[in-house]
Amino acid sequence: MNYQHGGDIYTNEYRLDFSVNINPFGMEETIRKAAKESMRTVTAYPDPRCRKLRDAVAKKLHVMPDDLIFGNGAAEIIFALVLAEKPKRAIVVTPCFAEYEQALKTVDCEIIYYDRKEEENFSLNEHFLSFLSEQMNRNPDRTQGKPQNENGGIDLVFLCSPDNPTGSMIPSELMKQIIAVCEENGIRLVLDESFIEFAEDRKRDSMISRVQDHTSLFILRSFTKMYGMPGLRLGYGVCRDRELINRMEMMRQPWSVSIPAQAAGIEACKLTGWAESVRDYVKEQRLWMEKQLEALGLKVYPSDANYILFYTERELMEPLRKQGILIRDCSNYRGLSKGFYRIAVKLREENRELIAVLRTIIKER
Amino acid sequence: MNYQHGGDIYTNEYRLDFSVNINPFGMEETIRKAAKESMRTVTAYPDPRCRKLRDAVAKKLHVMPDDLIFGNGAAEIIFALVLAEKPKRAIVVTPCFAEYEQALKTVDCEIIYYDRKEEENFSLNEHFLSFLSEQMNRNPDRTQGKPQNENGGIDLVFLCSPDNPTGSMIPSELMKQIIAVCEENGIRLVLDESFIEFAEDRKRDSMISRVQDHTSLFILRSFTKMYGMPGLRLGYGVCRDRELINRMEMMRQPWSVSIPAQAAGIEACKLTGWAESVRDYVKEQRLWMEKQLEALGLKVYPSDANYILFYTERELMEPLRKQGILIRDCSNYRGLSKGFYRIAVKLREENRELIAVLRTIIKER
Repeated sequence: MNYQHGGDIYTNEYRLDFSVNINPFGMEETIRKAAKESMRTVTAYPDPRCRKLRDAVAKKLHVMPDDLIFGNGAAEIIFALVLAEKPKRAIVVTPCFAEYEQALKTVDCEIIYYDRKEEENFSLNEHFLSFLSEQMNRNPDRTQGKPQNENGGIDLVFLCSPDNPTGSMIPSELMKQIIAVCEENGIRLVLDESFIEFAEDRKRDSMISRVQDHTSLFILRSFTKMYGMPGLRLGYGVCRDRELINRMEMMRQPWSVSIPAQAAGIEACKLTGWAESVRDYVKEQRLWMEKQLEALGLKVYPSDANYILFYTERELMEPLRKQGILIRDCSNYRGLSKGFYRIAVKLREENRELIAVLRTIIKER
Repeated sequence: MNYQHGGDIYTNEYRLDFSVNINPFGMEETIRKAAKESMRTVTAYPDPRCRKLRDAVAKKLHVMPDDLIFGNGAAEIIFALVLAEKPKRAIVVTPCFAEYEQALKTVDCEIIYYDRKEEENFSLNEHFLSFLSEQMNRNPDRTQGKPQNENGGIDLVFLCSPDNPTGSMIPSELMKQIIAVCEENGIRLVLDESFIEFAEDRKRDSMISRVQDHTSLFILRSFTKMYGMPGLRLGYGVCRDRELINRMEMMRQPWSVSIPAQAAGIEACKLTGWAESVRDYVKEQRLWMEKQLEALGLKVYPSDANYILFYTERELMEPLRKQGILIRDCSNYRGLSKGFYRIAVKLREENRELIAVLRTIIKER
């Protein structure tokens, strides 16, 4: 298996890991305690319905408990969703998280790539709407009077906001238009909001409240990033289409979400103020880092998340590795190339150290 | 979701749970400690390759590390395997674990049922070989000179030994013949050995050593039962077909196995003598319970595992529930009917209590 993600600390010796996008404060102590205490109960199977966790998340997000589906990380939800939908043609926006493509390939789906432009800072704009309508009109059935389906053969669209690896947020007005078009045309819209809790205006930008009136909208969320628990595996989907959720449940085992993951999630829902203070801290640090990177002559792309994409012609992986620092080489992302790197926003001292080391490397030229 | 398994303690109030087949001693303390301590490290992603766990299991089972694939419970492995194989026709032996069927349905596989007979104590015998050969010869392609494939359209066979819910062990000589037939004919044979560590002669009866010479053999194993950790989710497959294992890895996310599950598994591999003493205890208790159940006039099926299937016309679920005792109603298993129940073998005092309560219920008649 060729592992091409960030955070591969099991292969690499490292001192500072900037390659993985996790809350720099890690896991909050009460969550860790709850997960540890749950070890008393792991001699039982997990609750397949995740009932307590379901109620906690539903209450927190103001959604119906039955609109939720939990998974062994958000990544499991992506695979189950694709299996349940078995799309024939799907749109993926590049550059993006590799799991969308990998999941679509399990059902031999034709993938149509929408390439965002570097010169537009990889942002999504109105042009996407015309692309979508163009793709829908490509349906050969349309020319024969009665179309077999109204969506022109596009079954599914993956979007991510703020997206990984660019950090770019889809403007909320545009997002609402995309949701409306997909709803009208029966296109399943999967919106990955795994990083939205780091976004400056998450209340305006999250589309969770649209779920109730748009059954084709499926929102992906994760406990991994904000709650610093990638090793426990907990993510979820929010969708009003109960029939889809039932089909997804049939595509996997009943016991996907472990007892410690459920316990940690329940505890995370009880926290107040944690996400807010993490977000403020990360924003301050991100702005500082962006300024420093630009001062070093690197091309920095605007981010509304806890990571920064930048470009430089200078080779960085090896020199940084020699200093015990891991960053994410983004050259293997479709739509990116050699020279693109992603770094997480970490704690102040760590960020300062990275910038200092980068400065030395770049000045060595 | 309609949950039809044992161990649904989240719906039912209970005092004693005989519905789930877990080691009655639960989780060994050093394993629990290792899982708890691993909570320090869950701010990182799990190792997708499960390297330390892989080495520990390989050493313990005397297999090659690359012959192993780990999953979020053995149940996840079943789904990934079926997705990777996409069988068109598969044989399932009834009665059996519901996940084989559920997984096969995700790829619209035609399921051919081989019904074991109650009057033969649900044991598998030589008749299965003729059934297999008959099914292989049903291939319409065979009549046209050159068959499209040599296995007559049977792509996959699920077997379980000792099997769930009957506890019946497939005789090792028969098992070797089935393995040979499947190997010769290119039929993927999935042998679920999740309960083999409870079997009296596991060294003779396990087919792990056959993996090296039979690439079509896929053995399923679980940490859940013997190590009492269903809430943590850890299972694995053993197979020499590297190409299959690679395809399976592509059918799911890279981070299926959580950090606490990996930590617990590594620690479980270090235990010496634990499985042996559990097995001896369970066997003694099982023999005692079988005798007691028979003395109560119930029909008991011979088991080589940590649970017992029996039949009675007397309704038991409600009267037992009133006493705070859960057992597994097996009427929803294909091939079984109302009146079949499965109970776990638990600790001496618990077993005595169950028998005492059953005696009262049955004498109430």
